[in-house]
Amino acid sequence: MPVYTCTTTQSTLATDTKAALATEIARIHAEINHVPSTYVNVVFHELAPDSLYTDGRPASPVLVNGWVREGHSAADTTRLATEIATAVSRITGVPSSRVLVVMQSSPASGAVEGGRVLPEPGQEQAWMDASG
Amino acid sequence: MPVYTCTTTQSTLATDTKAALATEIARIHAEINHVPSTYVNVVFHELAPDSLYTDGRPASPVLVNGWVREGHSAADTTRLATEIATAVSRITGVPSSRVLVVMQSSPASGAVEGGRVLPEPGQEQAWMDASG
Amino acid sequence: MPVYTCTTTQSTLATDTKAALATEIARIHAEINHVPSTYVNVVFHELAPDSLYTDGRPASPVLVNGWVREGHSAADTTRLATEIATAVSRITGVPSSRVLVVMQSSPASGAVEGGRVLPEPGQEQAWMDASG
Repeated sequence: MPVYTCTTTQSTLATDTKAALATEIARIHAEINHVPSTYVNVVFHELAPDSLYTDGRPASPVLVNGWVREGHSAADTTRLATEIATAVSRITGVPSSRVLVVMQSSPASGAVEGGRVLPEPGQEQAWMDASG
Repeated sequence: MPVYTCTTTQSTLATDTKAALATEIARIHAEINHVPSTYVNVVFHELAPDSLYTDGRPASPVLVNGWVREGHSAADTTRLATEIATAVSRITGVPSSRVLVVMQSSPASGAVEGGRVLPEPGQEQAWMDASG
Repeated sequence: MPVYTCTTTQSTLATDTKAALATEIARIHAEINHVPSTYVNVVFHELAPDSLYTDGRPASPVLVNGWVREGHSAADTTRLATEIATAVSRITGVPSSRVLVVMQSSPASGAVEGGRVLPEPGQEQAWMDASG
């Protein structure tokens, strides 16, 4: 269901680092938003050095954009962003000053996976049971 | 006006497949949201196998993110997501279990094309007439 | 804090052009949204010619997606989108008919930078002072 998109420059992240970060994001998301980690997608965009700028200068931040279904509490969303930001720094070695995590959401009713409209938050179990 | 961004791994989609899918997304969007297909943008990000993960493991889903102007009905947005998800599976051959379509929206007043702020839903004709 | 993502085809933008556009976007954002330009991130995705379509045909628009914290006025967001669209055409030479700027936002409470939750609009100074 969720999609986390990490954007940085080439050579910032080794393959092992990407796999480890994807695993940790899946774990954090599963714990806070009550969705099995099997549904958590993580995408990495690794760009040329002249394709990423902060303050008009080439830079190497790690920008994480997370999409989740609308309807989770603000407190849970804050916790999600905070724990993922911490994980990014710990796993990649990039200092927190260069790590930005932004959560976005939109209604589950406008999202489809496995051919079915996603469940509202709290309705996950019935949705998964019906996927038989 | 709308932008559909499809993210998957390299070699999942042939060039012909991308063109066919872009055409079908434009057709579906035009029909449901009443915007000529000439305004429909479709982007493909095709990533290395070690840049896309589901559940912490390398995977090849097709993730579609659609941006539309805020103000369409929830029913239309559900129909849009559902029809596009069906089209993705039919055209790419990727099973629906690996296809996720997410629609997002924001106010037309915060979007500019052709140098002009986009019209609110329902005001498209006047906007296009004025583009002279 | 903000992230502007520019998507176009390869060879549409020279490196100098990207740097100039990133600088101008940072300047415009800083002026309108009262955040120092040091916080403005600009990302460029440059795709193969068969990865970007308008109306089902290969095309070379410049698609700009801006993320900002929720809570700025609609008028400011309109101005931001309009000034950035104008800057894109002026700096890249791409005609405005092929330039689309879309602003999106989500709550500051769901975004983390430098290990801290972002400030609500209007609270930037206190947040920056506390970053010691």
